[in-house]
Amino acid sequence: MTTETDFDQATAVQRVGDTGDRFQAEFRTEWLNHGHVNGGFVLAVAARALGGVLAEGSAHGDPFALSAHFLSRTAPGPVEIQTSVVRQGRQLSTGTASVLQTDQKGAETERVRIIGTYRDLDTLSDEVFTTAACPDLPPPGECVSTETASEEMLSQSRLHERLDLRLDPATTGWSNEEGPSGRGVASGWMRFRDGREPDPLALLLASDVLPPVSFDLGAAGFPVTVQIAAHVRAKPAPGWLRLTQRTHNHAGGFLEQDTEIWDSKDRLALQARHLIYLMPFGD
Amino acid sequence: MTTETDFDQATAVQRVGDTGDRFQAEFRTEWLNHGHVNGGFVLAVAARALGGVLAEGSAHGDPFALSAHFLSRTAPGPVEIQTSVVRQGRQLSTGTASVLQTDQKGAETERVRIIGTYRDLDTLSDEVFTTAACPDLPPPGECVSTETASEEMLSQSRLHERLDLRLDPATTGWSNEEGPSGRGVASGWMRFRDGREPDPLALLLASDVLPPVSFDLGAAGFPVTVQIAAHVRAKPAPGWLRLTQRTHNHAGGFLEQDTEIWDSKDRLALQARHLIYLMPFGD
Repeated sequence: MTTETDFDQATAVQRVGDTGDRFQAEFRTEWLNHGHVNGGFVLAVAARALGGVLAEGSAHGDPFALSAHFLSRTAPGPVEIQTSVVRQGRQLSTGTASVLQTDQKGAETERVRIIGTYRDLDTLSDEVFTTAACPDLPPPGECVSTETASEEMLSQSRLHERLDLRLDPATTGWSNEEGPSGRGVASGWMRFRDGREPDPLALLLASDVLPPVSFDLGAAGFPVTVQIAAHVRAKPAPGWLRLTQRTHNHAGGFLEQDTEIWDSKDRLALQARHLIYLMPFGD
Repeated sequence: MTTETDFDQATAVQRVGDTGDRFQAEFRTEWLNHGHVNGGFVLAVAARALGGVLAEGSAHGDPFALSAHFLSRTAPGPVEIQTSVVRQGRQLSTGTASVLQTDQKGAETERVRIIGTYRDLDTLSDEVFTTAACPDLPPPGECVSTETASEEMLSQSRLHERLDLRLDPATTGWSNEEGPSGRGVASGWMRFRDGREPDPLALLLASDVLPPVSFDLGAAGFPVTVQIAAHVRAKPAPGWLRLTQRTHNHAGGFLEQDTEIWDSKDRLALQARHLIYLMPFGD
């Protein structure tokens, strides 16, 4: 028997309407990061709704390849997710999800448009020939816990009451007198504080919880995600996740941010790429 | 005055119907690669249709961030593209495109679903802080021209009558007695034979013209693209394009393929990631 954990409650979706393809949920203030609804959290909620719909007509309930385009800024509070099935195939099923909120003028506004291709991750072959290198992080106890952040930062990021995040000190120079390394890297460990083990939805959240790579790059601007492409390559094993993010191409005011998430069995469980706009401060 | 070049003719779309959001085009046999309609070519045609629609309500006619999910195998012949506008913003506009063909039973079948975020690429800031390294290729004259491929291969790949593709010999061992390097890399130069200069649509085509990285990896299976995420980061300068592709994570029968395209001014003009299924031969 499993009990419903905090993350499962926070990402819960409920069917509304007659057609069975529309859901309501809530972006709770307990999951805000720097005062904003985390893009990975939005993706997890939408992916849960779409997965419920696709799993009804197939065995394809696990998010496998997701594309998300961010249209307007998501706000805490009620949200609806309109899903549609595009194709149900033998190995893969694909659908769309629109994340909708009521704006300040009372109009329904689309926040995010998503295409998701789902499968049964348990049917993936076990063959692993990956040449990617598992990140070499100091043990969690030698990393920087978000508990050491300022009271002000933590009050804006209640997410960290729920996540145990340990940042590799080699990538946190931007937060102290060392200053940013200029490499454009962030890495660390993550697990849920309440002991919930990771699954594909948790990977989507985890793909967006490290400090933006622009901090370590020393690049000014508020990072705004334009697009996410995420591949869930394996169901993660129980235990700590290791996360790495890096950028190579900071140009024209935008940068790509590539994320890898490795599980406790050294399996590369998620690859994601974000396209990020560095919005000039004051804009 | 410019004349309409071959690539422009091949990607031409014509409005059909009353609503103005539906287009017809044709996937011509002259652009087939290994007997298949190239995924990058499909993306270029769909992006052209969507760009036409988005440019009507904004200055955003250039593809900037595209997500494509491949649903069923595209065939040569007539095709229709159903577009829709999702949001027109100040800096970015977003829409969708569905690539539709009539299947052998006469039913309309969706081949590809795309979300595209467009902008005016000329308004991107000129600041470039990229740390990515421009590929170090032998000059085109010292690379392997596709003209040296077998008659049989070329008859299946009439695309190469139109593209001047020069492969880095360090990545073509799979085609001769050397054998695959096992690194999972492909790289080379590309330009149109008729002298047409590259633009964002040409970058989309170019993101998919190198041999699959699975050849250099020595991995068996027919590569089938599941998803593409493509970022056009700059309008390419005239001249040769340099293309590189590599994979790091071949696992569970799938691999990611990361593409970079550099222009003649050493600017990183496109970054793309494909999720590829290696379909067992005979499946």
